[in-house]
Amino acid sequence: MYELGVVYRNITRTDAATADALAGLGSATVHEAMGRVGLMQPTMRPIYAGAMVSGTACTVLLHPGDNWMMHVVAEQIRPGDIVVAAITAECTDGYFGDLLATSFQARGARALVIDAGVRDVKTLTEMRFISSKGTIKATIGSVNIPVVCAGALVHPGDVIVADDDGVVCVPRAMAAKTLEAAKAREANEGEKRDKLASGILGLDMYKMREPLAKAGLRYID
Amino acid sequence: MYELGVVYRNITRTDAATADALAGLGSATVHEAMGRVGLMQPTMRPIYAGAMVSGTACTVLLHPGDNWMMHVVAEQIRPGDIVVAAITAECTDGYFGDLLATSFQARGARALVIDAGVRDVKTLTEMRFISSKGTIKATIGSVNIPVVCAGALVHPGDVIVADDDGVVCVPRAMAAKTLEAAKAREANEGEKRDKLASGILGLDMYKMREPLAKAGLRYID
Amino acid sequence: MYELGVVYRNITRTDAATADALAGLGSATVHEAMGRVGLMQPTMRPIYAGAMVSGTACTVLLHPGDNWMMHVVAEQIRPGDIVVAAITAECTDGYFGDLLATSFQARGARALVIDAGVRDVKTLTEMRFISSKGTIKATIGSVNIPVVCAGALVHPGDVIVADDDGVVCVPRAMAAKTLEAAKAREANEGEKRDKLASGILGLDMYKMREPLAKAGLRYID
Amino acid sequence: MYELGVVYRNITRTDAATADALAGLGSATVHEAMGRVGLMQPTMRPIYAGAMVSGTACTVLLHPGDNWMMHVVAEQIRPGDIVVAAITAECTDGYFGDLLATSFQARGARALVIDAGVRDVKTLTEMRFISSKGTIKATIGSVNIPVVCAGALVHPGDVIVADDDGVVCVPRAMAAKTLEAAKAREANEGEKRDKLASGILGLDMYKMREPLAKAGLRYID
Amino acid sequence: MYELGVVYRNITRTDAATADALAGLGSATVHEAMGRVGLMQPTMRPIYAGAMVSGTACTVLLHPGDNWMMHVVAEQIRPGDIVVAAITAECTDGYFGDLLATSFQARGARALVIDAGVRDVKTLTEMRFISSKGTIKATIGSVNIPVVCAGALVHPGDVIVADDDGVVCVPRAMAAKTLEAAKAREANEGEKRDKLASGILGLDMYKMREPLAKAGLRYID
Amino acid sequence: MYELGVVYRNITRTDAATADALAGLGSATVHEAMGRVGLMQPTMRPIYAGAMVSGTACTVLLHPGDNWMMHVVAEQIRPGDIVVAAITAECTDGYFGDLLATSFQARGARALVIDAGVRDVKTLTEMRFISSKGTIKATIGSVNIPVVCAGALVHPGDVIVADDDGVVCVPRAMAAKTLEAAKAREANEGEKRDKLASGILGLDMYKMREPLAKAGLRYID
Repeated sequence: MYELGVVYRNITRTDAATADALAGLGSATVHEAMGRVGLMQPTMRPIYAGAMVSGTACTVLLHPGDNWMMHVVAEQIRPGDIVVAAITAECTDGYFGDLLATSFQARGARALVIDAGVRDVKTLTEMRFISSKGTIKATIGSVNIPVVCAGALVHPGDVIVADDDGVVCVPRAMAAKTLEAAKAREANEGEKRDKLASGILGLDMYKMREPLAKAGLRYID
Repeated sequence: MYELGVVYRNITRTDAATADALAGLGSATVHEAMGRVGLMQPTMRPIYAGAMVSGTACTVLLHPGDNWMMHVVAEQIRPGDIVVAAITAECTDGYFGDLLATSFQARGARALVIDAGVRDVKTLTEMRFISSKGTIKATIGSVNIPVVCAGALVHPGDVIVADDDGVVCVPRAMAAKTLEAAKAREANEGEKRDKLASGILGLDMYKMREPLAKAGLRYID
Repeated sequence: MYELGVVYRNITRTDAATADALAGLGSATVHEAMGRVGLMQPTMRPIYAGAMVSGTACTVLLHPGDNWMMHVVAEQIRPGDIVVAAITAECTDGYFGDLLATSFQARGARALVIDAGVRDVKTLTEMRFISSKGTIKATIGSVNIPVVCAGALVHPGDVIVADDDGVVCVPRAMAAKTLEAAKAREANEGEKRDKLASGILGLDMYKMREPLAKAGLRYID
Repeated sequence: MYELGVVYRNITRTDAATADALAGLGSATVHEAMGRVGLMQPTMRPIYAGAMVSGTACTVLLHPGDNWMMHVVAEQIRPGDIVVAAITAECTDGYFGDLLATSFQARGARALVIDAGVRDVKTLTEMRFISSKGTIKATIGSVNIPVVCAGALVHPGDVIVADDDGVVCVPRAMAAKTLEAAKAREANEGEKRDKLASGILGLDMYKMREPLAKAGLRYID
Repeated sequence: MYELGVVYRNITRTDAATADALAGLGSATVHEAMGRVGLMQPTMRPIYAGAMVSGTACTVLLHPGDNWMMHVVAEQIRPGDIVVAAITAECTDGYFGDLLATSFQARGARALVIDAGVRDVKTLTEMRFISSKGTIKATIGSVNIPVVCAGALVHPGDVIVADDDGVVCVPRAMAAKTLEAAKAREANEGEKRDKLASGILGLDMYKMREPLAKAGLRYID
Repeated sequence: MYELGVVYRNITRTDAATADALAGLGSATVHEAMGRVGLMQPTMRPIYAGAMVSGTACTVLLHPGDNWMMHVVAEQIRPGDIVVAAITAECTDGYFGDLLATSFQARGARALVIDAGVRDVKTLTEMRFISSKGTIKATIGSVNIPVVCAGALVHPGDVIVADDDGVVCVPRAMAAKTLEAAKAREANEGEKRDKLASGILGLDMYKMREPLAKAGLRYID
């Protein structure tokens, strides 16, 4: 059970090798590999195209119009972290700009995922600092407690994977297994891609014709 | 750590007396008493005006277009429960109608909170069965695992409070303390209401004039 | 092929007995009976609770900010019709008020379905005249051509069913068959409702336990 | 030119007779009588059906998550006022509940128009105190300065008209003229309504057949 | 009359020369040339900037969470087609990724227009495969039946024109005439552009001063 | 007091040096320097990334589906102006394309800010002509009267600042003071940025530790 109004300093992070490896597989494959769960709302996208990052979650809960806690969480960042910020009510205020980004980067953060507005988009892009934007919904409170960010539940130490397809949270206990499953998917897809590129139909490759006929599909010329 | 694709049968529920007592205090007061956290998105409202209910959460995770798990969760309902349904992607499909409501009521459920469409609104209203509607976002999976419903994190056994002001989730470990705090707020508000009704200003009652002046507020005639 | 800028005077309407009978079955059951198609967007709801109506579609296409064609379509109304108005671009302007409602009612219209704003809500409610509201999207043009209203394709002469669950369009050629299927569903549901009310679970009534186990569902105590 | 961080105490209000008379004509007619301007966004609706109110605007600008200024504006309310609250960024926080309503009512306010969330909806409805809800956007600052509420510009002393059709702001300088024009429209509409009810078409009553033919409208049997 | 649950194999496509020529004129000009109809909702945009494509529509209707029919439609694609996918309820699930894109491209498809989420955005962009995204609404069913995609009615064989200004559907019977009208508009616009660039005002070029004065426009210095 | 249906020809513009200097400081800093007011809704963004512009506002009020007034305002443009267009009801119609852009540019306009759709996005981007897009809400009427554009109040002659962070309106009377304050902020931020980049925490630099402890924040290892 977590308490509110508290900064949890010692959190257990997913091991760095696993957290780092997930970026290369992409949020879409990771999402599939977890059984289609953990995806933040589709409005969450990196602020510049082509971003691909993963890291361990360091969470913070803000109240509308107040970014005090952003400074508090800065101190808790460890290299390789992605800060995940949730807010207790929907608010379009801009909570994050280039000053905070400078501080976060100095502490080793790779990105900020926030379900609210940001400012200094141009500078953040130049710094290659990722900040996802969207609308807001949030939950319990404080630093390094579980938060709901853009509809996804994030525990401190979970893995965040963010790219042009979206932002996915991989629970720490599922990270190693998910990495394995995502790699298997990717390996498997290469062969399928070649077959489909040669003109073989998914209907035949996946043997769908019989079940479709059983389900009642008819063809009319 | 929870697993996916699993029905957890033995969950610890908030004690009934606490869960029941929260309904009368209202979601707004309970929300304040918890420190302004736990509120679902403001689009979540009961389907009929005047509803006031609380109960223990029995959670279920659905996939888009599939309500199999609604029948699975029915068996896990205990009298006094409120079923909280989350879906793994936003979808406007109607997952719940009067047949399921009949089954849920027969098992002792007091309400359904679902971040998706429902059908048979007229019948559900006649049955005084509450179903909150809105848009959808969701998380990990299965029955009686933690879910994100309408932006709020709900653990099995938590207390749900729903009325015209919205839907609030009170974590089980905070339920007793929240009840106490909410009662204290309510007792306190009666006296304040009388003063304000007599024309005394909040400016004076809360002694705000000095801090406002210090903050720079000026009056111009 | 339809032309634009034209009023089609002679359209073939669904027979009145079929069109009238669908109201009593409700939009949700009719939607299911058609195979879950034909439903307008979920934001479309009657302006007063408890409305239940069906009738034959008389269609009109408006341009933003211009309700001339509302007067043109008034002349084409036959008793038992529901006017379906689409607009060529999203616009929140109010296109319909109590004067037009008076005229439509005098011509025998039962309702207006419009994916745009209306005014004089209080009067329209007193007249028990149904007008669904929402946001707007539209298509080709003129009076009694096919239009897209709130995401559903409506041909002149189709049946519209509107109540608190939403608005459904039943294509003319499917109307008789849909009525039959909807009646069968309803007859069938009475028996199921009794069983569920007695505490029998859908899991057993629908024999779901075996397929769920095959799909990998596990129970944990 | 207005200053920020200031409470303007002496504002010029529209004369009470004019402000009061507009309620009976309804927001839709008043909106038409002003030339289709001044309407707040269509999401703004009173919290209970059947509300009809008008009054003089007393404005306040809030910052997200902070309702201090609500207490400041309470002191500036004069009997017959409607408080119009704007917020400097979109925020779903609930800024207003039954305690503030009690204070506002004690000071003579007839309603609150706020482009944000409220709480204690049930109590506010019982008090017949109107509070319109929606999403938020705002402007310059302080008490009794011009604000943008739900997309409409409101100056202190303007007239607010609110009912089931929406919320309209009538600029003070246009109030007398608008009242006259709205009365004229209403008188005029009675006669038209009778004609339309008798089956006469708007096409003929408004002599639209010739201009429509000139615009190219054709009829096809 | 179309049936549901059916694949129509022989559809009549707009002739290739007409369908191909429309891309160069752009969706905005084509939309104007058709009389401002046929435009999909403004949220529909290609996934990469600078896209310009047209082709014949090959339609498919999906149910939420199920992309079986995507494989069925792949077999029906002819070179020069654009697949238009509609879904029977709004759902943010990702129905289309690089594997399906590979298959579609191998069959000769130029683009996919889908009113739902896609994945593998980076790869789709590299393949220059266009996929428009947005939210979802849909209609009747199956492959090569009329569907409603993003608010526009699309018949199999119609022409789809997609670029940064949006997505337009040109009905087959209007394609040749629309091409002619769009060319005429474009020719006409060159001359106008030169005049406006030289500083001549639209007020004078379109002879608007007199009608504006008649409509009551006044100038105040 | 402004009148409707009128073109105001002689407006007082902010002096050019002040209006021009604000672009380089950016909308985010200007917004902060004004006390977090004047920002248009966050959906308002330039149509191409990297845009940075400021200029004096020349305002116009349109009615849905009608762009006559766009030609009227063209004549009122002075070099260095930004045209701000508001519409009296939300409407997705495209009111502005490359022909009007050509005319506006010929008259010396630097940008168009419009809370509605535009067409010819590709051409407008090539012309480096900025046009912000979003949804619509509006107010009183005519040319060079105060309008509400995307939630912000704009008077003729105010300064508009637009870049990737959004669009801000600076009232004429506040322009000089805002410029000074924004410059001071920027100067001040350089030193802070260096400190934060060196790893010094905001917690220490802003001396937040004591007030946070007083507010009850606790640390748990």
